[in-house]
Amino acid sequence: MHHANDILLSLFIVFVAAQIGAEIAQRLKLPGVVGEIAAGCAIGPSLLGWITPEQIVTGTPLDVLAEIGVVLLLFSVGLETRLEDLKKVGRSAFLVGVLGVLLPFALGAAWAHASGFDWSKSLFVAAAFVATSAGITARVLQELGVLQRVESKVILGAAVIDDILAMLLLGVVVSLQGGGGFNLSHLVMVLAGAIGFIAVIGWGGTRVMRWNSNWLEKPRHVHSPLLIVLALCLGLAYVSTLFGLAAIIGAFLAGMIASETRQQHTLEQQIQPLLSLLTPFFFVLTGSKIDLHQLANGDALIMLGVVTVIAIVSKLLGGFLGALSLGRAGATIVGFGMVPRGEVGVVIASLGLAAGVFSDRMYAIIVTMSLLTAMVTPPILAWLLRRGASHADA
Amino acid sequence: MHHANDILLSLFIVFVAAQIGAEIAQRLKLPGVVGEIAAGCAIGPSLLGWITPEQIVTGTPLDVLAEIGVVLLLFSVGLETRLEDLKKVGRSAFLVGVLGVLLPFALGAAWAHASGFDWSKSLFVAAAFVATSAGITARVLQELGVLQRVESKVILGAAVIDDILAMLLLGVVVSLQGGGGFNLSHLVMVLAGAIGFIAVIGWGGTRVMRWNSNWLEKPRHVHSPLLIVLALCLGLAYVSTLFGLAAIIGAFLAGMIASETRQQHTLEQQIQPLLSLLTPFFFVLTGSKIDLHQLANGDALIMLGVVTVIAIVSKLLGGFLGALSLGRAGATIVGFGMVPRGEVGVVIASLGLAAGVFSDRMYAIIVTMSLLTAMVTPPILAWLLRRGASHADA
Repeated sequence: MHHANDILLSLFIVFVAAQIGAEIAQRLKLPGVVGEIAAGCAIGPSLLGWITPEQIVTGTPLDVLAEIGVVLLLFSVGLETRLEDLKKVGRSAFLVGVLGVLLPFALGAAWAHASGFDWSKSLFVAAAFVATSAGITARVLQELGVLQRVESKVILGAAVIDDILAMLLLGVVVSLQGGGGFNLSHLVMVLAGAIGFIAVIGWGGTRVMRWNSNWLEKPRHVHSPLLIVLALCLGLAYVSTLFGLAAIIGAFLAGMIASETRQQHTLEQQIQPLLSLLTPFFFVLTGSKIDLHQLANGDALIMLGVVTVIAIVSKLLGGFLGALSLGRAGATIVGFGMVPRGEVGVVIASLGLAAGVFSDRMYAIIVTMSLLTAMVTPPILAWLLRRGASHADA
Repeated sequence: MHHANDILLSLFIVFVAAQIGAEIAQRLKLPGVVGEIAAGCAIGPSLLGWITPEQIVTGTPLDVLAEIGVVLLLFSVGLETRLEDLKKVGRSAFLVGVLGVLLPFALGAAWAHASGFDWSKSLFVAAAFVATSAGITARVLQELGVLQRVESKVILGAAVIDDILAMLLLGVVVSLQGGGGFNLSHLVMVLAGAIGFIAVIGWGGTRVMRWNSNWLEKPRHVHSPLLIVLALCLGLAYVSTLFGLAAIIGAFLAGMIASETRQQHTLEQQIQPLLSLLTPFFFVLTGSKIDLHQLANGDALIMLGVVTVIAIVSKLLGGFLGALSLGRAGATIVGFGMVPRGEVGVVIASLGLAAGVFSDRMYAIIVTMSLLTAMVTPPILAWLLRRGASHADA
């Protein structure tokens, strides 16, 4: 067996780097996830080069492990989330989702137009400011054990709304940029499909499980409930991409369905080793995509600073205004919880690069902005949550 | 997030097929692993084609998941194996390992020469008859909960010896075939390296852990013992490939080291969900490599039958003779336990194809033989072990 040696070495390096990074971060009183992202940056192409750029593009083994990692992470977050609790914060979550998309989009478009892009390109650039990546925030909330707080419920509910709107917006700007007109009926159908999928799975699935989950133990395998919900997780992650949604939305829904089973507690314990092995790949790969060489230049640095500030402030403000019913402290937590863009911004930037809308430099800036929002948020969020640890639970 | 959709679908298909296959097999009183391999054959290129040939070559995401799966499987088997117990059966294991390599090699070479190959090519063909793949047997022993029986210890110990000898043999035949002479001093160095690696890691590692394993809990992460031993598993799996050994040998050693820790029991529980998610990829991919089209031809079918019978009988006889000190029933179990060649034969056949030693047809026959030995063994082994369930433990 002489094959796959190199991939074993890469797996070892990524895994160990993540553990060392997380350990250092935690000793510095920072969330472990910050250390994992920083470790990824350190071993990535722009510093040590122990991971090569070819190893982190879409569809490579490391990328697939990262994808499985974040899918399982959102599944486990869903496992700690009851649909009933989300319904209670439905109004706030909806407002946060909508304002958290509109403000970054408006401010992003205004900035892009002011920087010399025409309006159709500006809307494309603005789309890269929009989509929140729930993975980073979910990990911080889980690490601090505050998934049951009302702010966490609002953030998770808003992340679902956010993903639907971001998907629609992306569809619109890509079609505008491609010279296609604005096709309202198509848009309505896409929206209806996504909402229908979430509603059917969310309502129907939880109802079935609440009614009876003994059938999960019918198969012969001792771990059959785990195996069935993992299959559900992979399946819904895939199906949600068919509706234009992120895979993690389907995984979250699968987790939420599984949270209604009577095996929920066992499942929560069994999922932990899977998260321990696989989520580090997601965060290390996120960090490894930060291209530090782009920061070596004064102009680019200033532009990056401006873009990042706009991205953070616009999302924070949207989330804050949407969640004002929770009071100022709660609304601030929700606002920061929505800030990380993570890999979603990276995907939009890649589309922009491929479509010729972005220059290489603009691409690098948008990507780095996305990752900076992911880096900056966890320490602030952890600080805000620890400070407000006396708040009431949901 | 529209990337990686297809891989999510493949993950879902492989995972669900494995569960359905295992369930059906178990209801038919067969080991679950048989159903997983059969499921792989069904969804693979030669039947349904839901997995394409491009998806299962070395280095693809599915292949890497399969590799991680079998590495974790042997790690978990090591976790249930004490070095002390292996030492007790050292003599038998050594005999089984040596005879289990010599007999298949001799009979394989005789058959190849009789079929018209010259001697140097015959030795190459014979090498494909040699290496036992411990994954299949390990899974059956684990599924039946008989890892503590003396036959299991002999099989596991012999698998290590087998891997060392197979590695040396492969080096010799490749060098002979390539026109290089027989370099004894190089061979001795390779042997010394492999034995040195196993001895240092096996003896040293277990001693360190037995002496003190509290340091595994020093890091902040609640699951730090699991994280550290997983890192050890990935690291030793890689290092063992540097010594020419299979990755699973390093993983088995890592598990054996971890079995000496005071956290052994917790680790054994935590590793189960990882096995549940990842080992199906190994067995399904193994099955998907069976090329049924090669069996559509009478001549090929006869040749395949002859080759498979030689492969099974020679290994069974070697193992049986080596383990005679356990009595006839025990020796039969050990003999059958050594029969599966699995992916090791596939690798050697690939080398032979690349070196021009094998025709496409011969390649297909060797590959199918390797996989047939893997398919045939589990039901027989399970039957023998259940029949002899009254035997004394190690």
